[in-house]
Amino acid sequence: MRPIVTLLTDFGLADSYVAEMKAAIYSEGTEIRIVDLSHLVPPGDIRTAQYLLGRAWSRFPRGTVHVVVVDPGVGSRRRAIAVHQAGQFFVGPDNGVFSSVLDGGDVVELRVGHDASPTFHGRDVFAPAAARLALGEPFGVLGPAIKDPICLPVLMLQVRGGAVEGVVVYVDRFGTLVSNIPGETVAGATAVEVAGTRVGPLKRTFSDVASGEPVAYVGSGGMLEVAVRDGSATERLGVGVEAKVTVTQR
Amino acid sequence: MRPIVTLLTDFGLADSYVAEMKAAIYSEGTEIRIVDLSHLVPPGDIRTAQYLLGRAWSRFPRGTVHVVVVDPGVGSRRRAIAVHQAGQFFVGPDNGVFSSVLDGGDVVELRVGHDASPTFHGRDVFAPAAARLALGEPFGVLGPAIKDPICLPVLMLQVRGGAVEGVVVYVDRFGTLVSNIPGETVAGATAVEVAGTRVGPLKRTFSDVASGEPVAYVGSGGMLEVAVRDGSATERLGVGVEAKVTVTQR
Amino acid sequence: MRPIVTLLTDFGLADSYVAEMKAAIYSEGTEIRIVDLSHLVPPGDIRTAQYLLGRAWSRFPRGTVHVVVVDPGVGSRRRAIAVHQAGQFFVGPDNGVFSSVLDGGDVVELRVGHDASPTFHGRDVFAPAAARLALGEPFGVLGPAIKDPICLPVLMLQVRGGAVEGVVVYVDRFGTLVSNIPGETVAGATAVEVAGTRVGPLKRTFSDVASGEPVAYVGSGGMLEVAVRDGSATERLGVGVEAKVTVTQR
Repeated sequence: MRPIVTLLTDFGLADSYVAEMKAAIYSEGTEIRIVDLSHLVPPGDIRTAQYLLGRAWSRFPRGTVHVVVVDPGVGSRRRAIAVHQAGQFFVGPDNGVFSSVLDGGDVVELRVGHDASPTFHGRDVFAPAAARLALGEPFGVLGPAIKDPICLPVLMLQVRGGAVEGVVVYVDRFGTLVSNIPGETVAGATAVEVAGTRVGPLKRTFSDVASGEPVAYVGSGGMLEVAVRDGSATERLGVGVEAKVTVTQR
Repeated sequence: MRPIVTLLTDFGLADSYVAEMKAAIYSEGTEIRIVDLSHLVPPGDIRTAQYLLGRAWSRFPRGTVHVVVVDPGVGSRRRAIAVHQAGQFFVGPDNGVFSSVLDGGDVVELRVGHDASPTFHGRDVFAPAAARLALGEPFGVLGPAIKDPICLPVLMLQVRGGAVEGVVVYVDRFGTLVSNIPGETVAGATAVEVAGTRVGPLKRTFSDVASGEPVAYVGSGGMLEVAVRDGSATERLGVGVEAKVTVTQR
Repeated sequence: MRPIVTLLTDFGLADSYVAEMKAAIYSEGTEIRIVDLSHLVPPGDIRTAQYLLGRAWSRFPRGTVHVVVVDPGVGSRRRAIAVHQAGQFFVGPDNGVFSSVLDGGDVVELRVGHDASPTFHGRDVFAPAAARLALGEPFGVLGPAIKDPICLPVLMLQVRGGAVEGVVVYVDRFGTLVSNIPGETVAGATAVEVAGTRVGPLKRTFSDVASGEPVAYVGSGGMLEVAVRDGSATERLGVGVEAKVTVTQR
């Protein structure tokens, strides 16, 4: 297996920043495979980066290195870190973007060279470190272990009587509302509501309702989602991130 | 030659869905080359996917596997299929998206595992099947042969007297209008009209007219196109997909 | 090291044009690595292509081939060229897009085959030539040497008294204003002004000012930049490309 490095940034696709990171990676070794996870994270939006990483990382083979550059504090005293978790690696800023993969993982602080641009650690610090990890450099060589990486508070579910309450954490290209309610907690749900609008009981897939109708189901990321068949739930229901989602089981 | 897999979807570039498909492919083998054909097909737009695939597929080396995921019926009883045609392979939903490569090809129905997400066959069914084909698995192993894949009706040309009538089937980033009229039928055209606006006789390339002027020519996909030099034909002529295109030969 | 080919175009990401170029490259050899530099150059905008190439090219390993297809004169008598400069290669139209890498480099005129589409040299002329260069074909084999490639005039700096005057040449996704003033000429700057708005003395990175405040610093491309921390300088200051930037040193 050739090593894989994934890139998740808020750099967009018009500028040369992503290509400059790839140049830094290939300068370490051209046998690496690079996968763009997404570069359209809204600027500085750590929660969205955390969501996308959390969905995708475990799908990759062992040994994959995930680089995240959503880094409004670049060049400040925020630390640069790498995480080793479940056979995979994560490299980026210590700003909470790795919160969902810290638990039980090992963390080191990366050294930042004096020649690193203070506004582009993605290219000058994270990409080279990721490439070296991908090529087999031992994790501990990257820097000293640390015990206190920043971990953002988890959005908690409320359980009241027979109901579970969560929130919408992401809206995708299709206008689908993704909640923070795990699929395994909603088996047998008799009713799903989003911001007060009743969506109906849990279904299996889009085509279980008529075209244009809302549908609740366990999505491909394992969470409860609400979509509109052949349409957009965010437009139809008029809600987005942070909208309340309630599941009744009786 | 290393095997190539291309991806053509309506997933957009912000979400993690494309990267999750790549994870599934690389989990089968990292020697595969992956090419993004496009991920900006409008949601559910099978005709646009068919156009883009039809233009691009034959440019790739023998053995290339093309995955198409424009799949509003995912999880329903629509079949998952693979097509073998002219030394290349096609994997995706049986919804007509492969209409232009079915003729004379072999078709099999893919098995859908019980653990496949009913909303994401791109990742759980099509990507692994494509990777295995790319790595040399015999076509017939993928599933039983079928004889009745869905084939969308072809948009027909009208021929009246000395004129050929077709329609605009695609508008590209430059605002160029691409028709369904093959270049070989318009040699010596004396006049091209789009939705009643006269464009003039057939030219060779943009610079054969003055800047800002409309120009008709045989495009790089082999079809009659109408552009505006240094401008946008869709804006200048105020028309788009389905506009009538008439070619007079006399 | 496997050879690298980068692609910089104004083709956008919706159409199949970029994939067709990749098909042409992989048809020459699948061991090539392809990096997308950017495909969102505004249509026909040679200056922006020149800026992005100028920033990124030297970051790549020796032997890399950079293809640029921002080519409004395709099919006309404008020449197709390749440039050899500092161990790297550049392939594209002779329209000034390579102005910043011509000095001291070798230049050849590419032959354009009769079967090349007169509207898509990116696929039919530049991509195959780039692939052959990447795979080791000697530079001189591509075509005859030429001495007069088109070179666009450089945007000059004005130096008056203790002040250096330049202009904004690029605005990135974050709304950062990138100037044409090299970082090494502004050490010890006591004041930076953009279009008459005082930004303050030179800083090191975003976090050296409060959130929402403008900040001037030497960017990761080596030029003076003006950003707004956690915001957009182009929106906050209401200026963009061609705005005057003045640096006072005293």
